[in-house]
Amino acid sequence: MSSEPLRVALAGLGTVGAGVVKLLDANRDLIARRAGRTIEVAAVSARDRARDRGVDLARFAWTDDVADLAGRDDVDVVVELIGGSDGPALTLARRAIAAGKGFVTANKAMIAHHGAELAEAAEAAGVALKFEAAVAGGVPVIKGLREGAAANAIAQVDGILNGTCNYILSEMEAKGSDFADVLAEAQRLGFAEADPSFDIDGVDAAHKLAILATVAFGTRPDFDGVEVRGIRDVVAGDIAEAAALGYRVRLIGVAAADAHGLYQRVTPCLVREGHPLARVTGATNAVVAEGDFVGRLLFEGRGAGEGPTASAVVADLIDIARGIGGTAFGMPVASLSAAARADPGARRERAYLRFIVQDRAGVLAELTAGMRDGGVSIESMIQRGAGDSEGVLVAMTTHEGPARAVAAALERLEGSASLIGRPMVMPIVD
Amino acid sequence: MSSEPLRVALAGLGTVGAGVVKLLDANRDLIARRAGRTIEVAAVSARDRARDRGVDLARFAWTDDVADLAGRDDVDVVVELIGGSDGPALTLARRAIAAGKGFVTANKAMIAHHGAELAEAAEAAGVALKFEAAVAGGVPVIKGLREGAAANAIAQVDGILNGTCNYILSEMEAKGSDFADVLAEAQRLGFAEADPSFDIDGVDAAHKLAILATVAFGTRPDFDGVEVRGIRDVVAGDIAEAAALGYRVRLIGVAAADAHGLYQRVTPCLVREGHPLARVTGATNAVVAEGDFVGRLLFEGRGAGEGPTASAVVADLIDIARGIGGTAFGMPVASLSAAARADPGARRERAYLRFIVQDRAGVLAELTAGMRDGGVSIESMIQRGAGDSEGVLVAMTTHEGPARAVAAALERLEGSASLIGRPMVMPIVD
Repeated sequence: MSSEPLRVALAGLGTVGAGVVKLLDANRDLIARRAGRTIEVAAVSARDRARDRGVDLARFAWTDDVADLAGRDDVDVVVELIGGSDGPALTLARRAIAAGKGFVTANKAMIAHHGAELAEAAEAAGVALKFEAAVAGGVPVIKGLREGAAANAIAQVDGILNGTCNYILSEMEAKGSDFADVLAEAQRLGFAEADPSFDIDGVDAAHKLAILATVAFGTRPDFDGVEVRGIRDVVAGDIAEAAALGYRVRLIGVAAADAHGLYQRVTPCLVREGHPLARVTGATNAVVAEGDFVGRLLFEGRGAGEGPTASAVVADLIDIARGIGGTAFGMPVASLSAAARADPGARRERAYLRFIVQDRAGVLAELTAGMRDGGVSIESMIQRGAGDSEGVLVAMTTHEGPARAVAAALERLEGSASLIGRPMVMPIVD
Repeated sequence: MSSEPLRVALAGLGTVGAGVVKLLDANRDLIARRAGRTIEVAAVSARDRARDRGVDLARFAWTDDVADLAGRDDVDVVVELIGGSDGPALTLARRAIAAGKGFVTANKAMIAHHGAELAEAAEAAGVALKFEAAVAGGVPVIKGLREGAAANAIAQVDGILNGTCNYILSEMEAKGSDFADVLAEAQRLGFAEADPSFDIDGVDAAHKLAILATVAFGTRPDFDGVEVRGIRDVVAGDIAEAAALGYRVRLIGVAAADAHGLYQRVTPCLVREGHPLARVTGATNAVVAEGDFVGRLLFEGRGAGEGPTASAVVADLIDIARGIGGTAFGMPVASLSAAARADPGARRERAYLRFIVQDRAGVLAELTAGMRDGGVSIESMIQRGAGDSEGVLVAMTTHEGPARAVAAALERLEGSASLIGRPMVMPIVD
């Protein structure tokens, strides 16, 4: 245990960066007791020096060029809170690690895309690379899987990884509202970004899923292998039909590894009431992992925001201050396997299918023939006469079967004059 | 990273000990990838060498005297799975640590009683002392609080820490059965010990709570400061009344630290439906921690059994193999504070009170006068005419007030000829 302070440079002073400063101030003595030494901010960098962030920054050295932080002799660890998979964040990461600095980041996009390269560089330089805040905010799920569940072969990880989507879906559920209305309200309240596409199109959750999969399975990060669909096409009727069937609609990231390879998908799903992910509401994140000895583990908490994200960043700093080492992904990059991608069409599951159709004779016959010809076995079907002129909702659930059968059935129905808009498919999680 | 194997001695070959051997066999290669080296069992010791444990033990050195494991030159870490707060387990722990061995244990009683002494010895010897399996079985909650939440001042920890009690309470709930019947069934099924008193009287949960409190608050372990009440006195009527009010009965360990000191209690509680601990059924364990920056964290999973406990033991071994160090309780023993015990009577809460009374005039007047004179404000009250001759159930809930008021009211009613048996008091967790 060293009595020298751990000297930190902060790159980026948005909500999370300011939160880190606040946390290090508020819990300074407690952190020193836990870490065995104090953690001191030595230097900071951000775009706008003049902006009031609610914290006193005058006591820290300031550099305008964020990349300069990597070269400072008075810094042991660089904390990157700029964001973006490439650009200044990546440049800083490469330089800081090459300069022998520890590196802590909340940047899921960068770790999902460049995590293997950076982890390899960190191993070569003998420094720590840590990113607990990149997945599920304050919830220590990276540590939980990388260390807590390390004795297990993990078969599958399921998670609610994007608080914005979960907030929107649970608001739609609570109020019966449509997607667009809830999104607008969420933007007004600051729960959704002005450009919300990274969140609502599932990209943010996919970044996190690719990182989780690497830690859980010991496979190389494969963001491009994640099948991604967001929540834009979920309508109020889907949530109502799901509820009638005993399910809730959630954006679920699932990663599974078996003899067929690695399967990664982010998509809205029907989650059975009673499943731990079904009752997760609002901006909460939760991850369920299935280990061969431990069974099912659940980690849950706040997935974003100043306090939770700062908590995860500073936990990483305390680990470094304590001398708790270990590799970024739980094993050396050279030991990570390059898992083949499993054929998504082969995945066997039940599914929910929803169509908006013209209210005319023969439509149901056409739909059901399409299912039959695609090889889909229908478990339940309901048609709801809509009050408006925009057609009738038909929802069905299928028996378990390969995903490719559903795709084949929908292909047969493509272009049908009976259909209004594109059908919605959601896997069922029981 | 060393390429030498980590050599382990196993003391105790009951369910968990055999599970550790099975796990190290089953996931041998995966563990070696994660740990950076293999983990090898070098020697074992147990009471009965001849017993068939379903694993091949002939390949390991055997010693009849468990204490001999501490002195072996071919051992880096001793794993203690004997149990008991003192006796052979404690002797082994002291000797192993003094001999410079790492020490891993699932022994909550020993850590609750002697954890500070052993942690201090481990610090002096420069070896690891780890006990993830001692609390919540396979759920990495010690790591989660000690490291994952380390940046936070934690205000309170609530947990379902005993799977036997939770199994019994959730079976009583599901079947409307009485305690004695469910206990007998649980014993028949192997979910409860032949002598179940450590579990059902709350002592096991109290051991775990004292450990959790130490990690969460940085206070010295104070098992004797835990107020303990088990579940023997919970009757089917309590569970029915709780359900009618929107609550479930759970054995909850709560530890809170504030300016008044450290408060630790294990007691059956009414937990509001919707609270994460209310939906925990069967032998599952769960812990909720409230941090000042991270907010509420939830950890949940299997709290006991061969696989989950072995998972936690081997996770500790992997940490040691990886060279992940750190102190046993998250800070040096010298930094742990000796928190004063908070006055339990000052704790403000709502409570559920249940009486079995004679079915005669004036009883309710007597009860309500007792409440008034004790200073308890009644929120709701119900009397249920019972079908049998053993009296009538009266249940009430109180407004929030100091626990000492309830105690004072019950003291006034003590010895009343109207009461059959002792009243039941359960705090309400909203």
